Amino acid sequence: MAAQTDFTQRLAALAARVEAALADAIDGSAGGRAPARLIAAMRHGALGGGKRLRPFLVIESAALFGAGEATAMRAALALECIHCYSLVHDDLPAMDDDMERRGRPTVHVAYDEATAILAGDGLLTLAFGILAESDGLSASARLALVSRLASDAGTAGMVGGQALDLSAEGVAELPEAEIVSMQAMKTGALIAFAAEAGAILAEAPAEDRRRLREFGEVIGLAFQLADDLLDETAEAAALGKAAGKDRRRGKKTLPALHGIDWTRRRLAELVDEAEALLAPYGAKADTLREAARFVANRRS
Amino acid sequence: MAAQTDFTQRLAALAARVEAALADAIDGSAGGRAPARLIAAMRHGALGGGKRLRPFLVIESAALFGAGEATAMRAALALECIHCYSLVHDDLPAMDDDMERRGRPTVHVAYDEATAILAGDGLLTLAFGILAESDGLSASARLALVSRLASDAGTAGMVGGQALDLSAEGVAELPEAEIVSMQAMKTGALIAFAAEAGAILAEAPAEDRRRLREFGEVIGLAFQLADDLLDETAEAAALGKAAGKDRRRGKKTLPALHGIDWTRRRLAELVDEAEALLAPYGAKADTLREAARFVANRRS
Repeated sequence: MAAQTDFTQRLAALAARVEAALADAIDGSAGGRAPARLIAAMRHGALGGGKRLRPFLVIESAALFGAGEATAMRAALALECIHCYSLVHDDLPAMDDDMERRGRPTVHVAYDEATAILAGDGLLTLAFGILAESDGLSASARLALVSRLASDAGTAGMVGGQALDLSAEGVAELPEAEIVSMQAMKTGALIAFAAEAGAILAEAPAEDRRRLREFGEVIGLAFQLADDLLDETAEAAALGKAAGKDRRRGKKTLPALHGIDWTRRRLAELVDEAEALLAPYGAKADTLREAARFVANRRS
Repeated sequence: MAAQTDFTQRLAALAARVEAALADAIDGSAGGRAPARLIAAMRHGALGGGKRLRPFLVIESAALFGAGEATAMRAALALECIHCYSLVHDDLPAMDDDMERRGRPTVHVAYDEATAILAGDGLLTLAFGILAESDGLSASARLALVSRLASDAGTAGMVGGQALDLSAEGVAELPEAEIVSMQAMKTGALIAFAAEAGAILAEAPAEDRRRLREFGEVIGLAFQLADDLLDETAEAAALGKAAGKDRRRGKKTLPALHGIDWTRRRLAELVDEAEALLAPYGAKADTLREAARFVANRRS
């Protein structure tokens, strides 16, 4: 319990630093040339909440290989820009049509649809600018991050997974393997990137890079399972968004297929797998171990 | 006349090669994992037409500094991905609400809005992956291209210009300086990137890079003026899209402010400026000179 409290405090402290750095990156991106409304919409979509789990994983994974927060921060910010743009676009009326996120109106509700589309495009574009200008990293590390993020955020990853998810809505009998594969792309790819990015930017050996990638994939699965479990069980107030909406939309989830007890057992297995992958790093990886437990056990 | 015919043949021949390479890049991006419908929508948005002027400028600008088409092609493709994504998103109902482009239904009409949003996101993301994996270029050239493209395509460039354009719709008395500045961001930044990118990837000296950038800015102005002139004068059939729509929407253009004769004189001045910028390169820059005249005099 004490460890978990310490963990959540560290997560919250990092989230505050990420928030400030993201605000600076967004404000600085336009050189004063873009309309204030666009910048405000980007801030609305990217700031004001979020656990900043993906930046935390970047920074803790980098720390495992000796790279400090200052070195890892820009990769963390770039990833968070991608994550936030995807939320802005996913919330649009033509996509999930969500009115609320993190207890506030979504960007197209607070502004308008056109501004939300452009704010998402702006955040997506900014991510790659941030990576290219990561001063503390070697050119080869920066290029590897750009290349890997383009793959994980694009048609082979998040965007492709989102398209699969849309095409599966209302399909009566989606095979479980297809649900898992879609979720691995839609949600898992960015979490896997988070863990791998730390190893990339710290220029860790290829074997470590693969191992962190796998760790990220495992906790990405746990993240999605925990998310689906919350959607089944939580109150809207605790989530800051509508609960039960996946079920109402006919979205297929593993908790809906197998039940809550199965899901909790599976989450425990995934935590074991994640910890096993970190075994070679001993006590240095304790924070990442706690992150795995946090992801599996989160209540919001 | 003969020169211009030769020029249009070269442009068309390059367009065919760009078309094939873009198709390969889009098909390869998903590693077979994304739904066929998403890939088909990206192909619809990026293939089947377009003069490929921006790729042509990248490749001819690179040639000026001794870099061949094979070396320059990936930067050209990346830029075209950005251009095409911007058309897909701009055509959306919440933005310009266009039903037709290049004589065919727009992506959200041929598919659906959600798929069009994702197809645009996919093309935008792919652009940076293509740049990062430009095998023939040095790491520093690739990073400079990523950084510059993120700036020119983002809130300080194209996305910011589009937001300014939307916010100006229906404003009765938009100052001329604001029209010019908005257009320089919305349309000019990518054309300026095209010319500068050739100098970047060929690792030309900073002075040449600045000169090509300025050349790109000048022909970007000419491109927009010629576009606005066409909107005032052309038939829809020649454009493959609705004509006169800017005026109907209350969009402010310089031809609408100053008339057609003024616009033709201004276009001739811009061609002179563009040619003056190319003076140091002598006959080697003849194709870029023809490109400047082509941009200013185009009829579709």
